[in-house]
Amino acid sequence: MGILFVISGPSGVGKGTIREALLARVGDIEDSISATTREPRSGEIPGKDYFFMSDLDFGKLVEQDMLLEWAEVYGKFYGTPREFVMKTLAEGRDVLLEIDVQGARQVKAKMPEGVYIFISPPSAEELEARLKDRGKDSLESIERRMKSFLDEMSYLPGYNYEVVNDELETAIHKVVSIVTAERCRIQNKD
Amino acid sequence: MGILFVISGPSGVGKGTIREALLARVGDIEDSISATTREPRSGEIPGKDYFFMSDLDFGKLVEQDMLLEWAEVYGKFYGTPREFVMKTLAEGRDVLLEIDVQGARQVKAKMPEGVYIFISPPSAEELEARLKDRGKDSLESIERRMKSFLDEMSYLPGYNYEVVNDELETAIHKVVSIVTAERCRIQNKD
Repeated sequence: MGILFVISGPSGVGKGTIREALLARVGDIEDSISATTREPRSGEIPGKDYFFMSDLDFGKLVEQDMLLEWAEVYGKFYGTPREFVMKTLAEGRDVLLEIDVQGARQVKAKMPEGVYIFISPPSAEELEARLKDRGKDSLESIERRMKSFLDEMSYLPGYNYEVVNDELETAIHKVVSIVTAERCRIQNKD
Repeated sequence: MGILFVISGPSGVGKGTIREALLARVGDIEDSISATTREPRSGEIPGKDYFFMSDLDFGKLVEQDMLLEWAEVYGKFYGTPREFVMKTLAEGRDVLLEIDVQGARQVKAKMPEGVYIFISPPSAEELEARLKDRGKDSLESIERRMKSFLDEMSYLPGYNYEVVNDELETAIHKVVSIVTAERCRIQNKD
């Protein structure tokens, strides 16, 4: 069986950047593509970054239990198609899942044997500065995100690893090390 | 608390070389120095490579319960002074222990929270070739070591990680990654 690696953490913490670096540096890991009902952002490619779909089509996937997890975030739906993950793991290949904390909690309930990595910001102040810098969010959206920050941090104890993203290159190196180490882990340990 | 890292595996597998590389590349890890009753080998420095001592002095350490583990290997005694390990961990610094499989088993019984890394050879044939190449052992000694190889491999399931030393640089990189990853591990995980 392959290993399921889940990268999660508060919004705006940099987990998307870390995911991209990990895919570039680690061989033999398959990126799971999420389904979502939100609009594509500038530069995003359908079928590569996300499967973009209508609320109706997303609802069908939920009804047919074809999503490993799904959640509503800021009025939009996000989900992880189950089939790709299970098929890839069964073939002995590792899967990388980058999702929000609510989604990660659902996946962990179904797949506790996965490796759960929580990316955390150095501080609340630093997170706010980053959200403003990336220019994707309105001030109202940033305020809302900062309010949910403490709630998102409360998910930390359910994870196997915490990587503080204080310096991006160091954080990437740590996540790559976790993947390398977990591939050496003995399953039937005491 | 610091983390106790234990590197072990069959005789001649290269764990001493990996230990040295790890100490050179990883900061903030303290090397535990073993006590032994065997003769110093060429180039070994007393108090750095080992505390060399008589059977009588070693016996006193055992009587006073001042060894974390000890074992007789090929008629010589090896042990790990307890005080240094406990004191260093209590100060929040990590400790590296490179010991044989019998010693590692004793330490694990006392300190199950440690990280146990088993270095294994690519094959029995490769191990025999290496023992001959390093020129430290007589043919009789090599034969005896090969007989104990399978016995030593039977300790593997008690470990957290297995690193196959098929290519030294790759093996060192994996052990360094394990140290980096374990430093990110969340202790109160589900």
